Amino acid sequence: MTDSITASSGPLFRRLAIIGPGLIGSSILRRARQDGTIAARLVACDISPDVCRRVAELGLADEVEQDPLRAVADADCVILCVPVGAIAEVGAHVLPAMKPGAILSEVGSTKLSILTALAPALRPDVPFVPTHPMAGTEHSGPDAGFATLFDDRWCLLTPLPETPPAATDLIVEMWHRMGARTRVMDPAHHDRVCAIVSHLPHLLAFTICGTADDLADETRSEVLDFAASGFRDFTRIAASDPVMWRDIFLNNREALLEMLARFMEDAQAMARAIRWGDEEFIVDRIERGRHIRRSLIENRQA
Amino acid sequence: MTDSITASSGPLFRRLAIIGPGLIGSSILRRARQDGTIAARLVACDISPDVCRRVAELGLADEVEQDPLRAVADADCVILCVPVGAIAEVGAHVLPAMKPGAILSEVGSTKLSILTALAPALRPDVPFVPTHPMAGTEHSGPDAGFATLFDDRWCLLTPLPETPPAATDLIVEMWHRMGARTRVMDPAHHDRVCAIVSHLPHLLAFTICGTADDLADETRSEVLDFAASGFRDFTRIAASDPVMWRDIFLNNREALLEMLARFMEDAQAMARAIRWGDEEFIVDRIERGRHIRRSLIENRQA
Repeated sequence: MTDSITASSGPLFRRLAIIGPGLIGSSILRRARQDGTIAARLVACDISPDVCRRVAELGLADEVEQDPLRAVADADCVILCVPVGAIAEVGAHVLPAMKPGAILSEVGSTKLSILTALAPALRPDVPFVPTHPMAGTEHSGPDAGFATLFDDRWCLLTPLPETPPAATDLIVEMWHRMGARTRVMDPAHHDRVCAIVSHLPHLLAFTICGTADDLADETRSEVLDFAASGFRDFTRIAASDPVMWRDIFLNNREALLEMLARFMEDAQAMARAIRWGDEEFIVDRIERGRHIRRSLIENRQA
Repeated sequence: MTDSITASSGPLFRRLAIIGPGLIGSSILRRARQDGTIAARLVACDISPDVCRRVAELGLADEVEQDPLRAVADADCVILCVPVGAIAEVGAHVLPAMKPGAILSEVGSTKLSILTALAPALRPDVPFVPTHPMAGTEHSGPDAGFATLFDDRWCLLTPLPETPPAATDLIVEMWHRMGARTRVMDPAHHDRVCAIVSHLPHLLAFTICGTADDLADETRSEVLDFAASGFRDFTRIAASDPVMWRDIFLNNREALLEMLARFMEDAQAMARAIRWGDEEFIVDRIERGRHIRRSLIENRQA
């Protein structure tokens, strides 16, 4: 399939519909418009008239639709770019209006909960290809997007066993044309990986900020003065959007709670070692941190 | 006192002895040598003949002594720059050899445990001024130091109630001449502030690296691939020296375990809110993180 895609010079899709042109959705539109080989015609859809007006002003799409059913009717690919908590609902709403053979995709940060909620609405004649582009900024809305958002970032894909490989290949190719690197994985594995690399670090960052905020006034003001000693690194990721992160935490509940439980056991073991002066244990745990840091540097991720 | 110091143009000390010319100690020597107004004569002392040889090669001091008792004998200020775990022992060893009126100082990252261990050896005629310059790199030894290490960094001072203000003023002035900003605080308060701004973040960073390292091989390798999503920020501070951090954790045991216990309660509350879908609680905790982040930016610490 990939060969035939590469061989053809026409766009991947005749008509691509983006439902929810926020940071991610409007970045897809901008890149597709700039690239020219992704879709012949771009449709943007949002239930908010303000967002529709703004998308039209910015000239991000060939058509701007407020009604999702009209937006998807003739599309050969529909990508749901609404918040994680709304993906299954919007998907179930538009699926009956999609034409047979069209591909349904979405860009949520969690996978299993979306799959479970959307499963009853899925159609055998509409391939479903869930994706997770690991890119973003602290801004949101159609003005926040930009064409290079996905350059050199990962996009994880979690197709179902019944998803036709040709559909997955098309979406993989689309993300390559967006500038992203792709990896296909199982949805449960996806949720565990994201729980440890992203969701747990964010949860810990939010939590330590709250712990500091609860301290007596004098200490709290000094936390701000002396934050350079380590605390500051934790606040960098604590500046993210509260509603987005609430939805991610709730939608990746199982994997996140499991990783947090493992972390809490490890932190308790460290606390016990400090209380009882177990020097060997403490040094061993610290050396693991250095080891992972070195691996990241070798892996050019640091 | 400060007025009289500023008025005089001569060096603050006739003879300044640095015990343990590692990263911090050799940076003090380099700055003092470059500045000229800190000490008329610099003495460096290390029990390791290799370190003594290297310090002499680098020309960091006017005299290099392997015997601490000889190094301190005629000094009017002695600064212990040995690891936190050795400060009390070295202090008790050199105190009887110091001349009356000379000032004893040290640069450990924790305060209460040093004070408790050193208290029986303190002399009423030798003022003790504990300090904590909040500066460092991941390197150590006499080659690692540099004259600008303390520029614009904080140095916290925790004099005893019986420390003569004139002695504290002299040490404050010395740190200003090193380029640092200073703040005087109570030793117990110091240990709590450092526990939350530095020691707890480091403990959490070491721990999450260990948690990731314990995952099944496949997930672990993907942690490295996808670390940019938040995990990476935590590893930056996890690259620190294991023995130094072991000593800090053990010497600030009480304050660190208290902050960790508060943090664990907060993390458990967050876990419970996620399990039961308490959206309001989750959003409230995340918004505190953003609030602290904004305060840091306003405070020019981020």
